[in-house]
Amino acid sequence: MDMKSLSSLLTQVRTKRPLVHHITNYVTVNDCANVTLCIGGAPVMAHSPEDASEMVAMANALVLNIGTPDHAQIESMLVAGSRANDLNIPIILDPVGAGATRMRTDAACTLLHKLNISVVKGNAGEIAILAGGKGTVRGVDSHGIKGDPIEIAKKLANKLDLVVAISGQTDIVTNGELTLLVDNGHPMMGKLSGTGCMASSIAGAFAGVSKDHVKSTAAALAAFGVAGEKAALHSNGPSSFKVALTDNVYRLTEDMLRKSINVRTV
Amino acid sequence: MDMKSLSSLLTQVRTKRPLVHHITNYVTVNDCANVTLCIGGAPVMAHSPEDASEMVAMANALVLNIGTPDHAQIESMLVAGSRANDLNIPIILDPVGAGATRMRTDAACTLLHKLNISVVKGNAGEIAILAGGKGTVRGVDSHGIKGDPIEIAKKLANKLDLVVAISGQTDIVTNGELTLLVDNGHPMMGKLSGTGCMASSIAGAFAGVSKDHVKSTAAALAAFGVAGEKAALHSNGPSSFKVALTDNVYRLTEDMLRKSINVRTV
Amino acid sequence: MDMKSLSSLLTQVRTKRPLVHHITNYVTVNDCANVTLCIGGAPVMAHSPEDASEMVAMANALVLNIGTPDHAQIESMLVAGSRANDLNIPIILDPVGAGATRMRTDAACTLLHKLNISVVKGNAGEIAILAGGKGTVRGVDSHGIKGDPIEIAKKLANKLDLVVAISGQTDIVTNGELTLLVDNGHPMMGKLSGTGCMASSIAGAFAGVSKDHVKSTAAALAAFGVAGEKAALHSNGPSSFKVALTDNVYRLTEDMLRKSINVRTV
Repeated sequence: MDMKSLSSLLTQVRTKRPLVHHITNYVTVNDCANVTLCIGGAPVMAHSPEDASEMVAMANALVLNIGTPDHAQIESMLVAGSRANDLNIPIILDPVGAGATRMRTDAACTLLHKLNISVVKGNAGEIAILAGGKGTVRGVDSHGIKGDPIEIAKKLANKLDLVVAISGQTDIVTNGELTLLVDNGHPMMGKLSGTGCMASSIAGAFAGVSKDHVKSTAAALAAFGVAGEKAALHSNGPSSFKVALTDNVYRLTEDMLRKSINVRTV
Repeated sequence: MDMKSLSSLLTQVRTKRPLVHHITNYVTVNDCANVTLCIGGAPVMAHSPEDASEMVAMANALVLNIGTPDHAQIESMLVAGSRANDLNIPIILDPVGAGATRMRTDAACTLLHKLNISVVKGNAGEIAILAGGKGTVRGVDSHGIKGDPIEIAKKLANKLDLVVAISGQTDIVTNGELTLLVDNGHPMMGKLSGTGCMASSIAGAFAGVSKDHVKSTAAALAAFGVAGEKAALHSNGPSSFKVALTDNVYRLTEDMLRKSINVRTV
Repeated sequence: MDMKSLSSLLTQVRTKRPLVHHITNYVTVNDCANVTLCIGGAPVMAHSPEDASEMVAMANALVLNIGTPDHAQIESMLVAGSRANDLNIPIILDPVGAGATRMRTDAACTLLHKLNISVVKGNAGEIAILAGGKGTVRGVDSHGIKGDPIEIAKKLANKLDLVVAISGQTDIVTNGELTLLVDNGHPMMGKLSGTGCMASSIAGAFAGVSKDHVKSTAAALAAFGVAGEKAALHSNGPSSFKVALTDNVYRLTEDMLRKSINVRTV
């Protein structure tokens, strides 16, 4: 993997300023808006079917996040997602809590099957469940899976013909053929709410500038991870870390990213 | 314009502690609550029609913000707004994304025509659209207008008999006759989500202590801008800027405001 | 009251990592999620009736907060709360704004009477209203009550057979027989939005590790208060205080808590 090519996507995000439309949960929505701005994109949130459908037509990517699902929201995701598909706008799905409740599992499956999703990004438990395997999800946290996460990710990628990303100490990104491992990041990122959602927003911004979604997703996760590494140097706890994290997303340059990026093929 | 008179409104806010009722978007609602407290007001949020209608009766101002609209919310805005009108409680409208989608444009127009709005505050694109002119709004950002923003603001103010404010590098506040330009602020305020919404909340607090809404709105925007100028001295990026911004809203005194306020007539 | 016993609950929270399910307002929900993580619990938010009902079955506590109520949300609270009762999962109720509007007063009363609530925690005005006395609530703030708050809290506790907590400069926690006063905290906690909601989330986490809810609630309020005292040493205003507050919740140890806890019986 050419690190220079991955890192250069950051400059493309900063130059193009992709509009990232979100239909997302109300817990971390503010974090998603701000991190999208910090990476260089333009966030917008709209959930009413007609508003979402019209807004997505001017967007460069659509992020669907089921962190606080209800039936009306899933319906809006289907309407906006269908419009995005018609216009070839990439969709990122974050299946928050799939496996924890039937509603979330069903919602994720429905979105994956009715829409043409470009990237699904979740924790190991969520992805294992969606791949038809065994995983334990308690609340919104993964509590272990059965099997090798790389094989599970590849299986789901091949089955649905999309890019699968599993977040964790080492992030996995695969389209079933090419698999990238991202070793950037910091344990503090697991100590605060919203880092998973923010990663999906950044993946949306990067998907808005490159059609190679293995590459765009790995670059997005690496960029966020490098910002986390830098933030950890100047924080006293999760909240000061969060301030430093988004500041460092904003301050990250292509050059800084290229020097610190840690992505390998497997 | 008498700067001492404008600045003294801050002390009136701190003394009266106006209750500012919000029906607003779920992206920046926490920022609106905290900035209202920091400027010296008391925030409350209620969106259910009967709850909003009863709550607004004890409020000193009502802020309506269509950043994440749906039909039920617009209906609640009409119910609460009508009650506010009956009780002579000033209404501030922030028409977020008007011009970007039909739903937002329609919602803003409906609110402007069915309610007696005191102040409408938006970016140049949003106000141009509402004035019947040409503006480009992408997501929630203005991407240029046709014509002179001061003339557009005056036109809308005269047409609807209210105060129009356009936020930007120089803020414009006009009732069609008297036009004030506010040159306070800092570019970092455009790098984070929610500064526009926060400005509307502060405008609500100031509208709660003065019936002269050209003056109250200009004073509110100047106060927020001065806090931004001070915050920029101690920040490393948008998130640390945001922390410093609201801290400086809290720490701002009438004396500090009078020394830094930069408002002129045109 | 044995301070060592109270303080040791913090270690139990850190060890067990209780899952705290929230049905709460959209203003401070992110603060609730993050403070739950910082104290050592695992937060989850779900509001759709079937999702909430399934999620609560794996939780160790349920927090119901009516800060932004609507009919669908109250219905979900009843469904999830009924399930929690069936499974002996403790419920914390934060009756935000009870007394300010009929909808909020009715919602709080309905929840208190249809569900088996373990702890109700509010400000003096809210609790006075729920006890059938006289209190003034403006927006979401208490503006005075008639009578002695300790007697009012005991009256409500005895009437409904639950634990009542009144937040204030001195927090009151009582089951009608045993009454604890918590003198930890800092005035800055009243200068930002969400500290009351965060206190309820922490009370949920502590209720998830101890069936003695006078003790668990007093320990929770003391822990949050001690974090506030430490945070006040390093803040320039409400926002930097908020960052420091949650950082200090995260950094708090049992030993630190035991040294600073200030709880007495009355």
